[in-house]
Amino acid sequence: MKYVRFRDPAGAVRRGELEDGTVHFANESYDFDGDEIDILPPTEPSKIVCIGRNYADHADEMGSDLPDRPMLFLKPPNTVSSHGDTVTVPAGKERIDHEAELGVVIGEQCRHVPVSDAEDVIAGFTCVNDLSNRDDQSEERNWVRGKAFDGAAPIGPVLATPDEVPDDAAVRSRVNGELKQDGTLDQLIFPIPELIAEITTYQTLEEGDVIATGTPEGVGPLADGDEVEIEVEGVGTLSHSVRIP
Amino acid sequence: MKYVRFRDPAGAVRRGELEDGTVHFANESYDFDGDEIDILPPTEPSKIVCIGRNYADHADEMGSDLPDRPMLFLKPPNTVSSHGDTVTVPAGKERIDHEAELGVVIGEQCRHVPVSDAEDVIAGFTCVNDLSNRDDQSEERNWVRGKAFDGAAPIGPVLATPDEVPDDAAVRSRVNGELKQDGTLDQLIFPIPELIAEITTYQTLEEGDVIATGTPEGVGPLADGDEVEIEVEGVGTLSHSVRIP
Repeated sequence: MKYVRFRDPAGAVRRGELEDGTVHFANESYDFDGDEIDILPPTEPSKIVCIGRNYADHADEMGSDLPDRPMLFLKPPNTVSSHGDTVTVPAGKERIDHEAELGVVIGEQCRHVPVSDAEDVIAGFTCVNDLSNRDDQSEERNWVRGKAFDGAAPIGPVLATPDEVPDDAAVRSRVNGELKQDGTLDQLIFPIPELIAEITTYQTLEEGDVIATGTPEGVGPLADGDEVEIEVEGVGTLSHSVRIP
Repeated sequence: MKYVRFRDPAGAVRRGELEDGTVHFANESYDFDGDEIDILPPTEPSKIVCIGRNYADHADEMGSDLPDRPMLFLKPPNTVSSHGDTVTVPAGKERIDHEAELGVVIGEQCRHVPVSDAEDVIAGFTCVNDLSNRDDQSEERNWVRGKAFDGAAPIGPVLATPDEVPDDAAVRSRVNGELKQDGTLDQLIFPIPELIAEITTYQTLEEGDVIATGTPEGVGPLADGDEVEIEVEGVGTLSHSVRIP
């Protein structure tokens, strides 16, 4: 099943099922790409827990060592932006990068989840762009200016249940239509159940929280006006543009 | 004015005024220390933005250089705990430290706030303990396990309007009644208006968000069962205990 959260023509927030480009809720149907509905982020997370260096080829391109346990960082709610948005990034920066990621949407409040039970707490998967301001990221210990600026986590538009997404799903980015990243989910150094177990050793995950599972090789700088697409096989494609003041 | 957020005997969440140990809401009055009401955190922040190394003597005791701009890190909503709570910290750690801080509670949604207007967005001040798991903090780039574990931000109980708090307010911690930290607010390397201006260059602050302004010299390890008090002059005292499994 694929779900889309949206604002309907009356202004109400709904979650509908997506089939062949049509969103169904109750007796109503809407064109996903039409003007009748506004696509919203698939969730309103209390936090996005992000994983750094979770693909070996990306750690290598950044000149980083492989971590011996998941490298964690945080994106708070101010970072959430949506399919179709134009994200205005902090002004005066030289390098803002795209990072295509599969996002895990948590389905229930949970803590101390063993690896063997981790699948039970997953509502589904979505697309995330872990937008990164390298100017500041390279100069700060905790990546707040670098990773937690307003709009730094475009997410969505689809929440796909796990059965829709193959274990080796492609994770891709395109900039102005040109393929930039093309990894697969089976390249994750720390697979999703291990991420859930490790995070919940320290933190309660709430229903709707998101784990951004890391990005494959091929990250690169964006220019003002660029159109970015993040595709996860079995989920769909997140599209947004950037404004670089 | 001093305010306390609490759950009343009927279960409703209220914000009352605190005067001489009594909490007033509408026609009702309650003993602050009594059993009739449950004291709640003074706010439900979407994020706590914390400042590292904002007192020179604390940076020195940690062997750290002084930052040339505010050092930022994040505590998400799972870190919030309250006056009177027993905080259970992650198991098996050697060193969990207390860090007494003044917390700034934001009064309105804001972005790009100039230093000259920063006071306009402050609702008031409260006490924060920036509980820190040094075992993990020292081994990770972003302080998630180290600073963002469940309950790592005891906060409250009082929200005091800015006129209650002198510019050189004492910021103190006591463990089992023994004074451990005793700084003053005028020692801040980056004063509060500069913190608000810097953070809002990158992030929207929401009503209820908190800035934890950094800790003075004298941080130190806690043992299982310790009673911690965080006092900010003009605000009051936050008390909680810790359970170290």
